[in-house]
Amino acid sequence: MLQTPPAVPGMREDEIDTPALVIDLDAFEYNLDHMTALVSAAGVKLRPHAKTHKSPVIAKMQMARGAVGSCVQKVAEAEVLAWGGIPDILVSNEIVGATKLARLCALSAVAKVAVCVDDAAQIAWIEQAAAASGRRMTVLVEIDVGGARCGIEPGPAAAALAKTIATSKHLIFGGLQAYQGSAQHRRTVTERQALSTAAADAVHRTLDALHAHGLACPLVGGAGTGTFELEMAARALTEIQAGSYLFMDADYARNLDAAGQPVSTFRHALFVLSTVMSAPQSGRAVLDAGAKAVSMDSGLPTVWGKPDLEYVNFSDEHGKLDVASESTMPVLGEKLRLVPGHCDPTVDLYDWYVGVRDGRVECLWPVAARGATA
Amino acid sequence: MLQTPPAVPGMREDEIDTPALVIDLDAFEYNLDHMTALVSAAGVKLRPHAKTHKSPVIAKMQMARGAVGSCVQKVAEAEVLAWGGIPDILVSNEIVGATKLARLCALSAVAKVAVCVDDAAQIAWIEQAAAASGRRMTVLVEIDVGGARCGIEPGPAAAALAKTIATSKHLIFGGLQAYQGSAQHRRTVTERQALSTAAADAVHRTLDALHAHGLACPLVGGAGTGTFELEMAARALTEIQAGSYLFMDADYARNLDAAGQPVSTFRHALFVLSTVMSAPQSGRAVLDAGAKAVSMDSGLPTVWGKPDLEYVNFSDEHGKLDVASESTMPVLGEKLRLVPGHCDPTVDLYDWYVGVRDGRVECLWPVAARGATA
Repeated sequence: MLQTPPAVPGMREDEIDTPALVIDLDAFEYNLDHMTALVSAAGVKLRPHAKTHKSPVIAKMQMARGAVGSCVQKVAEAEVLAWGGIPDILVSNEIVGATKLARLCALSAVAKVAVCVDDAAQIAWIEQAAAASGRRMTVLVEIDVGGARCGIEPGPAAAALAKTIATSKHLIFGGLQAYQGSAQHRRTVTERQALSTAAADAVHRTLDALHAHGLACPLVGGAGTGTFELEMAARALTEIQAGSYLFMDADYARNLDAAGQPVSTFRHALFVLSTVMSAPQSGRAVLDAGAKAVSMDSGLPTVWGKPDLEYVNFSDEHGKLDVASESTMPVLGEKLRLVPGHCDPTVDLYDWYVGVRDGRVECLWPVAARGATA
Repeated sequence: MLQTPPAVPGMREDEIDTPALVIDLDAFEYNLDHMTALVSAAGVKLRPHAKTHKSPVIAKMQMARGAVGSCVQKVAEAEVLAWGGIPDILVSNEIVGATKLARLCALSAVAKVAVCVDDAAQIAWIEQAAAASGRRMTVLVEIDVGGARCGIEPGPAAAALAKTIATSKHLIFGGLQAYQGSAQHRRTVTERQALSTAAADAVHRTLDALHAHGLACPLVGGAGTGTFELEMAARALTEIQAGSYLFMDADYARNLDAAGQPVSTFRHALFVLSTVMSAPQSGRAVLDAGAKAVSMDSGLPTVWGKPDLEYVNFSDEHGKLDVASESTMPVLGEKLRLVPGHCDPTVDLYDWYVGVRDGRVECLWPVAARGATA
């Protein structure tokens, strides 16, 4: 079952049923526009990651501002975007399994689709699926630029995979995937800079090896919200894949800029609206938003605009607040905005976004690819 | 959108698309039967918590084995169960908000429904909603038996609330809610025993106060999978509300019995099936199940039946395994069962259960109340 929408356009924010996933539309549009300005100034393309928002509605807003398409991590996400009208989708991840590959090949009839590999066996499986579907598939080589997660070793090994793709009958070599995930949340610019420089070096080493094989590299994708400015400056990437810049979250807000201050490039635009649901007692209040309403994987949420209230503990359906002073005790039924610790898995808990501007509900958008983990 | 079912009955387990939420049906039925035997022997009623499974199909199996109904935490969960044919539902939680209360009152036309309060204001709001709907609602008083989350102080304050309910025109006093959530995952029996004894004392104190008001108490509900045997022995509760016993999880498996051994009352019956999706390298492998496939709020998942493999790190769509020896390196495409750290919020990430027996898919059941946080 899908959940009932928690609001109707025109309602006041305090009339929204909770827990609800709320977008501050002014902050959200600022983030969209500001990212467009930054990548345009750097002369780099933007292919935002839809794993953050899971919405063709939002992907279209990004494309209307110049994005070349979307990234996704999963075939099921690619389906939702393609069926929703997004014409150019990169699965920035390895896809293993005959069912998934058959679905991906079929999808290439309605959108331009590309996928990544880091092993020769994956290439053989995609070739087989592409041949069976009668289509040619575009395949990128993912290189490990320092994150030690997926990706083949940069340089000759990666170039050898690219050669295998290029010589496969139903495949096209599409370029390199070079995402340094472990750099995104390092707190200081110095750390993020060192990892971004190393990632760029790994890309250049691989481009040299591709050149030695006589292979052109039409695309090099990577970077996230934590590193994209450093990676644009390093000039190894042709496409930026940041996603979280749209919404920001409590964990990204802990990254520091060169002056040692919290990074302020983008604004908090995503909130979980929650209600004080149990009689507040001296020093504590209980909210209706716990681990099923806010993802706790990157730390607890913070309470927006209420420095006296601290979200200190959770259970599945409850969040406990410490209240610093009696004069700021919230009242039963009061609604509070939480800033999620991590936006991506929090979005994945909801069926609906509620867009708010000037205290009123302006729109409802489905989280169309919620649960699209396959 | 709902997600495509990851399997078809009759398939082999290794043909299931991943990540998938898999029930080992033999272990699951063992857990169902074993709990029935334990509560029957103690002469206590069982009202299992449906926040764990979110499924009318499973709630019916529990009732077929003697359960008196289901507990839920949210109105949206109550709706899914009532619409799915469950006749007796206790919302073991406070419900605040006019929309939610109107929905709850309307639902009482198709099922017996009760709800909890811990404040006089909530009673007034429920009275108002009940009057507007032309129905009488059953209301329990939640007492704080030591968890310091929701609940009014046990004793006279609680009895005063009960009196307010009993004298409200459209309300019926239904009993006490006495759940000690913070006792469930204490590791030693000594700790769990002390907290359970204190909880029982709080119930008895409140029953005395109710008696002084001349109020009968038809129901006292509480206990979870971590404490129900101790709480049955303490004889303060008329209904046991355990939920996780159905599935168990990695965190409950860290509780110890009187001999200092991991508690073995129930079996692990819930798994996330995942695939090795990236080329395994010396000492590491990458799975397709990260924070969007397994809830990380109570610790990382464990790898079932593979002591040499340790799930050590996650990102949104990836899980990283440390591999202790080269001889046990998993291969690309291999499927592994994970035991979730916490079953309840993990279930909430999926649209489908896949029931497996003897290596074959036997059934698919919808997680009908997935995302029912309102």
